[in-house]
Parts: sequence; structure tokens; C-alpha cells
Amino acid sequence: MPSQKIFATPQDAEAAFYEALERCDADAMMDVWAEEDEVTCIHPGGPRLVGHATIREAWRAIFANGMRLKLRLSQATTLSTPFAVVNTVLEHFSTPNDQAVGAPVVATNVYVRGATGWRMVAHHASAVPPSSLADDSRILH
Amino acid sequence: MPSQKIFATPQDAEAAFYEALERCDADAMMDVWAEEDEVTCIHPGGPRLVGHATIREAWRAIFANGMRLKLRLSQATTLSTPFAVVNTVLEHFSTPNDQAVGAPVVATNVYVRGATGWRMVAHHASAVPPSSLADDSRILH
Repeated sequence: MPSQKIFATPQDAEAAFYEALERCDADAMMDVWAEEDEVTCIHPGGPRLVGHATIREAWRAIFANGMRLKLRLSQATTLSTPFAVVNTVLEHFSTPNDQAVGAPVVATNVYVRGATGWRMVAHHASAVPPSSLADDSRILH
Repeated sequence: MPSQKIFATPQDAEAAFYEALERCDADAMMDVWAEEDEVTCIHPGGPRLVGHATIREAWRAIFANGMRLKLRLSQATTLSTPFAVVNTVLEHFSTPNDQAVGAPVVATNVYVRGATGWRMVAHHASAVPPSSLADDSRILH
């Protein structure tokens, strides 16, 4: 069943992506993704996932572990075109009492504009070396 | 100075990207990239690089080590829209006598169509776990 959500801007889609990630909400997460067989998702250290259904199952498995984490984003970049946007951002996860969980990661997030607004078509995340964090002044979230 | 090359399709741009990578040709590599400050490049295990000039310097440093490697691509995916294309592909590097070099990596490559044809706007590459290679039947290169 196609998603009912409409994202009027890529920023709206990205905000919904990270909100769903932090809330461990697989349905809200998949509302953000284009309903296509060619969408791709790569979690840090994981295999490449291809297609809406496969990506959905992977998020469900990740969220099923029950661990709720705090998420902070920093150092965002945006490349904007009328029909496609590529964002990158550093993701920092921590426990509710502010213990860092794992290494920070850099994510490349791609959104395209279709008949029903903006949707994510690709998410690629991988660990970042500590030297990347020297300039961490642009805290977003 | 703007690039003189015109890539009529995203496939042409991707072919030029991997040819430049295999030939260690930084000028040919940068002909593929959009001349913008917001383009992004992430090499496996490396920091996020932002902007045409920064990305150029990084490719020059990589190519300056003088090591010429064979490159094989497999398991490509393509998500096509009229003005943007997202490709993913597995990259396998080896020495001229076929010794594998490093782990295979998955790359997410994003191209957009502008006034002067198709250009790369993002490249994100990271190591792939061995389990990703189980279905390696679609050899491309």
C-alpha cells in the first residue's frame, strides 16, 4: 500500500527519517522511502540492501532489539537541485545517560522529488575516523 | 576552469569515473565531478571530503602513491529519474597479478543532469562484509 505521507521538502523528509530512527518506528521510517525496487540502504559495516521490502525488514530487525538511543547530528552538507538533493551528516548515538554508543558515522542521504513529494532513495552510512570530528562546531540536533 | 567534457548519460559519467580511477588520472577523474562546493566524497575508512577542490586534492594524493591496481565491478544497481541517478556497485581491487588488495567495497554514486550533461555529485565508498559477496554472479567489468 503506498504511503500516505507527503513531504513537501527534502528537509521534511530528512527530519522524518531521523525522528523515525530515534523513535525506532519502522512504519514511519518506511514512509520516508520511495516505494521502489531500486532504493538502496547501507548500514555501517553491513551489506548493501536493495529494495523497499528488504530495507523495511532490516530496519524492523534493527529496531526490534529494543535499544532506544539518543541521536545527535552535526556538520551537515546539502547539495540541492530542483529534483534531487544529496545531504551528508555525521550521526552520533548515545545511551539515555549520554554514553557514546559505537563510533560516529557519516551518512549520505539522497532524496528525489516525485508526484507525491520528496522521498529518500538512498542511505549510505559508515564509520568515521576520529580526525573527522576536529571541527564539530555545527551541532544541529 | 570549467571542465570541457560532456557526459550525455550517467552511464558515460560512471564509465569515465572508473576508467580514471583505474588509470590514476586525477584530471580525468575531476572532469566527472560537478564543479560545486557541495559535492561530497567518502573513501573507505576516510573522512568526508566536501567541495571540488578538496576532493581533487584527495584523489591526487591517492593517485600519487604510484600503485596501479586492476578494478573489477560487480552487482550494480541503478535508480533512474530524469534529472538524477543513484548507482551502487561493489568494487574489487587487485594487483596486476590478481592478488586481491583490501576488502571489497560498496560504492554509492550519485549523478545529476545539468546544463553541461551528467556529473557526479557524491561518491560514498565503504568496506563490505564477506557475506555480501555470496551472490557475485553479475560481473560487470
